[in-house]
Amino acid sequence: MKKKIEFSSDYNEGAHPRLLDKLIETNMVQTHGYGSDPYCEEAYEVIKKLCGNKDLDIHMIVGGTLTNLIVIKAALRPHQCVLSPSNGHIHVQETGSIEATGHKISILSGKDGKITASQIDEACNEYWNNEGIVHLTQPKLVYITHPTEFGTLYKKAELQAISDVCKKRNLYLYMDGARLGYGLAAKENDTDLKFITECCDVFYIGGNKQGALFGEAVVIRNKTIAEDFRPIMKQCGGLLAKGRLLGIQFTELLKDGLYLELSVHANKMAEIIRSSLKRIGIKFFVENTTNLLFPILPDSILEELSKDYSLTYYKRWDEKSSVIRIATSWATTEENANKLAADLEKFC
Amino acid sequence: MKKKIEFSSDYNEGAHPRLLDKLIETNMVQTHGYGSDPYCEEAYEVIKKLCGNKDLDIHMIVGGTLTNLIVIKAALRPHQCVLSPSNGHIHVQETGSIEATGHKISILSGKDGKITASQIDEACNEYWNNEGIVHLTQPKLVYITHPTEFGTLYKKAELQAISDVCKKRNLYLYMDGARLGYGLAAKENDTDLKFITECCDVFYIGGNKQGALFGEAVVIRNKTIAEDFRPIMKQCGGLLAKGRLLGIQFTELLKDGLYLELSVHANKMAEIIRSSLKRIGIKFFVENTTNLLFPILPDSILEELSKDYSLTYYKRWDEKSSVIRIATSWATTEENANKLAADLEKFC
Amino acid sequence: MKKKIEFSSDYNEGAHPRLLDKLIETNMVQTHGYGSDPYCEEAYEVIKKLCGNKDLDIHMIVGGTLTNLIVIKAALRPHQCVLSPSNGHIHVQETGSIEATGHKISILSGKDGKITASQIDEACNEYWNNEGIVHLTQPKLVYITHPTEFGTLYKKAELQAISDVCKKRNLYLYMDGARLGYGLAAKENDTDLKFITECCDVFYIGGNKQGALFGEAVVIRNKTIAEDFRPIMKQCGGLLAKGRLLGIQFTELLKDGLYLELSVHANKMAEIIRSSLKRIGIKFFVENTTNLLFPILPDSILEELSKDYSLTYYKRWDEKSSVIRIATSWATTEENANKLAADLEKFC
Amino acid sequence: MKKKIEFSSDYNEGAHPRLLDKLIETNMVQTHGYGSDPYCEEAYEVIKKLCGNKDLDIHMIVGGTLTNLIVIKAALRPHQCVLSPSNGHIHVQETGSIEATGHKISILSGKDGKITASQIDEACNEYWNNEGIVHLTQPKLVYITHPTEFGTLYKKAELQAISDVCKKRNLYLYMDGARLGYGLAAKENDTDLKFITECCDVFYIGGNKQGALFGEAVVIRNKTIAEDFRPIMKQCGGLLAKGRLLGIQFTELLKDGLYLELSVHANKMAEIIRSSLKRIGIKFFVENTTNLLFPILPDSILEELSKDYSLTYYKRWDEKSSVIRIATSWATTEENANKLAADLEKFC
Repeated sequence: MKKKIEFSSDYNEGAHPRLLDKLIETNMVQTHGYGSDPYCEEAYEVIKKLCGNKDLDIHMIVGGTLTNLIVIKAALRPHQCVLSPSNGHIHVQETGSIEATGHKISILSGKDGKITASQIDEACNEYWNNEGIVHLTQPKLVYITHPTEFGTLYKKAELQAISDVCKKRNLYLYMDGARLGYGLAAKENDTDLKFITECCDVFYIGGNKQGALFGEAVVIRNKTIAEDFRPIMKQCGGLLAKGRLLGIQFTELLKDGLYLELSVHANKMAEIIRSSLKRIGIKFFVENTTNLLFPILPDSILEELSKDYSLTYYKRWDEKSSVIRIATSWATTEENANKLAADLEKFC
Repeated sequence: MKKKIEFSSDYNEGAHPRLLDKLIETNMVQTHGYGSDPYCEEAYEVIKKLCGNKDLDIHMIVGGTLTNLIVIKAALRPHQCVLSPSNGHIHVQETGSIEATGHKISILSGKDGKITASQIDEACNEYWNNEGIVHLTQPKLVYITHPTEFGTLYKKAELQAISDVCKKRNLYLYMDGARLGYGLAAKENDTDLKFITECCDVFYIGGNKQGALFGEAVVIRNKTIAEDFRPIMKQCGGLLAKGRLLGIQFTELLKDGLYLELSVHANKMAEIIRSSLKRIGIKFFVENTTNLLFPILPDSILEELSKDYSLTYYKRWDEKSSVIRIATSWATTEENANKLAADLEKFC
Repeated sequence: MKKKIEFSSDYNEGAHPRLLDKLIETNMVQTHGYGSDPYCEEAYEVIKKLCGNKDLDIHMIVGGTLTNLIVIKAALRPHQCVLSPSNGHIHVQETGSIEATGHKISILSGKDGKITASQIDEACNEYWNNEGIVHLTQPKLVYITHPTEFGTLYKKAELQAISDVCKKRNLYLYMDGARLGYGLAAKENDTDLKFITECCDVFYIGGNKQGALFGEAVVIRNKTIAEDFRPIMKQCGGLLAKGRLLGIQFTELLKDGLYLELSVHANKMAEIIRSSLKRIGIKFFVENTTNLLFPILPDSILEELSKDYSLTYYKRWDEKSSVIRIATSWATTEENANKLAADLEKFC
Repeated sequence: MKKKIEFSSDYNEGAHPRLLDKLIETNMVQTHGYGSDPYCEEAYEVIKKLCGNKDLDIHMIVGGTLTNLIVIKAALRPHQCVLSPSNGHIHVQETGSIEATGHKISILSGKDGKITASQIDEACNEYWNNEGIVHLTQPKLVYITHPTEFGTLYKKAELQAISDVCKKRNLYLYMDGARLGYGLAAKENDTDLKFITECCDVFYIGGNKQGALFGEAVVIRNKTIAEDFRPIMKQCGGLLAKGRLLGIQFTELLKDGLYLELSVHANKMAEIIRSSLKRIGIKFFVENTTNLLFPILPDSILEELSKDYSLTYYKRWDEKSSVIRIATSWATTEENANKLAADLEKFC
């Protein structure tokens, strides 16, 4: 079978070489396990500094689904639920992992993957104004992704409003940052890690899709969630024996800007393809400035493209065209981005 | 505080006197517990006969929420989900009890509380046609209520179509019959217990809202669900110590037609009020022929009514009117039904 | 099959007639559901008064397994465990219901069903002194039964010591009082409801085995456990629709001493049989002064007895004899107790 | 703080250099995720060949706790329990992770960490002979570790007997092979992968403690457990995004004998220390021929040793001595083993 060029996701390759080099360099150094070694300690310090807050609990977990379920399990009492946008990753891509911890996900319909402060407020009203309160699950944690599954971003003012309503309604705000770097590096972005830290009770800085072999770094500002987080991690199988592997990678990614650098690159590669698509008049299912593109392509072109490229089919648009997801990443080469851009112009 | 006349639900009173008499009569007879006594055995036989099938497993459980969660827990493997109409009782009225057993409820938008065979088929297509099947929960059980939360009924042909698609897609069909009698006794009904038994893998005959002190009788035709049902009941706290209380009540309700007789009465009481509302031109949020009415009433009238009657507020309709739920039951007196009918005509 | 006289458990009959009379008397009075009616309110007041504390949360639940799992689910965070004696009902008789809520039961070996303050303290030491604390479940709730499964009782000083160690180690103390009355009415008893209320964070006053049709009354002194208890009850299917049935029964049992009166009677019936057994030199597996007897009987006698009586086989003692459990209750007649006593003397 | 020489566990270092080389070599090759890439496929084939069975389902999971909980969750229905030796890793080292999936662990007391076929048979008798079967959890899966937590091994005949009783009693046999290589390479070992495959319904080949950065390879022979294993993995957060990392490592470990070679080395390093301890007359808490030593050391010597070495304190033996665990691994240098051996002889 012919090898295709991958634009199907942002984790088609291994890790950035600098991370591998560091793993090799430290390979035979002896450490204790479970996140208590000097490499993890270093990563914790680097992250606290970037977040502008020394009083944070940091934990690193292998993957996103495991991270989401641990955070939510640690945060909620039995009768409490999560508010999530209708296309939230926990709702549509994680095989019921949140429900498997015993909690309902209550859906807020979103625009371009985003929800608003007033939707959250309204959901709380529905619960708290209801006489039969005992029959409903209690909203307690708001789950958002930033960037969203559609690559869109919350503006600073939107995040602030969401954070404010969460404080007002006694809700936790949890941001899934699987692609946080691609968001922070985007043209339209007006937030930063310090702001996000202040807004959220807990969020994570994604590594899996951002240049690491694996790993997500959870940043917990809220002390109630932080309490006993480690035994709950262990109970869920989320405490990596050789925790050092996570510490080494996150330190390398974050200590001197590599993380943002790689994110800038991915967004630039996306922009090459986006410009090409715009030039030839292709419409987008959703507009954004990050690393995921959602063009609406004629089916005939799709067939041509699929000979050389691996893309992700998102959904049918109309009888003759479909929404496609094209993902660039830290590892996308300029050569491949240009080749896809050229082929798109050729076929369309 | 002035005592109001209750139309807020169908369980505002105790039990039909015949059931109480039987409880008193048998009170000092010694039996073993947990559903293995002669009274339970008698109820099992009565139910099998009514359902026209000797090869059924029958179990009686105190309440509906407990019944629903036990059935679903017994039926599903970890990654499997329930398909439910958007206003399904398990989704909106049971405090996340299904999710607490670890399972997601996937919502199908319904019309008047009902879902269709083609919606179920489509949901299966979405799952089974998806490449990323591992990221989605697997539809395995279809939950319907009959009558629905809106008092509407599935026609025989509709139920047959749903049953057929469930068999085709290897899904369990589970009918929540909390108000099954009110459905079977309705004017528009064209089904019966034998037909329902053949259509469903499992369903329950409601007692709580139909004249018993408490109790729902689960009828299981599917042998896979039946296996080990009793230890799972016990694990969930659903095995009543003095199971005899359930056996005695269901035998009395079902052995000679009392169940249907009481249901006919409740529907007749509803019809008195319905006719009155129609006479004065009140519109209904949803039309049905069972014991729950959903008139759209001007707020001014509501205020008047609420001095004498306890009704259930369902939701705002427009600036000046609201949807109200009026419930009659086996215990509603003709006097009270006529009084409410008359007051409605007076106020409107 | 010949009907045998039941000594197999303390729930072989229905309810004390006074409770039935009250149910009949109030049967057609209309109330709202779920424990918020005047009958429940009355029971709450009666119980608070008996417990000598107005600041308690009272809830009534149909059965013991459901009660135990709800209390423990409401009390624990995910990584926390229960400390229980090795023959604790939750450990050996409830089909893994506690584990089904996600929590481990850590066993303390007991003498005659009882555990001691120092055992609890030691278990805490094992946890808190361990470096690898993250790999162990955290003791957080101590579960005891009083009287125990063996009918034995904690002395006032023992309970005080357990309560003290729980406070010192930040543990909840939970007493399963399925047979609390039989304990309070026992000759050797030196505790009362007020003392128990002060000792425990939460306990329950059993109804199922003490003269009610069904029902256990949970008394919660600890405000952390009390918070959100009702939605968690509902989630577990433990909120009875016609909650009034519980209120009516507990009010009747507790308002004027019926509960203790019935317990005194049961213990007296046990004493008739106990005296007889002692007279003829039968040894006991465990000694107590409550309603459960554990004589060690020769197998030959067992065979004779089992023609007329239904007893509970507990376990083999040696090649020729077995430990048997004989239970009396509020409903045991003096006639039957005397008959069994006489037959024992005749056969032995 | 002075850096100590580690003998505290078998995962104090990174990975064997050959695995790292392979990760680097393949780093920029594009693949799809979640275990469906060519590297995983290659590992699956290598493992099937070693196990002598083409009809196996293989899955690779990051860590042991996650593996154990996924296997058990996939295997059991709600009311079923695990039989485990009293020092089973799932019982004493995984923070209640099995209970968190809803299942009880029933303990069989073991000798040197091992349980016997007749103990298993007896546990089944206790369940199946009991009238009150509905109140007990049903034994369904036997969990053993091989080598055990004490480094001891099951002989071929013992494993065969356990496997036979499991088949007879309709139980799954699951072997936790976290240190399987150290067992297979041991002097006293008389089993191999093919035999283990035939004996077990499911087992895993440990990578974390055996030279990999991370990873355990689950081998499933039983088709019932295999069904839907992948969505359950995903639900538990156990499906690694870049599954390739597991495939690459296991292929490298297993394709040409590296796995056993490293295990032989670790056992040899342990033997150096063991011989030394024996020479000076130190007794062992438990005897074995694998990589974990449990000498009983005088406390005075411990103090000396702890200046240079990091060991694991297991438990107090008597007033003046303690049981210590010394672990060697694939990464232990001959220099360090000799140094510890010499120091032991010097101090004792």
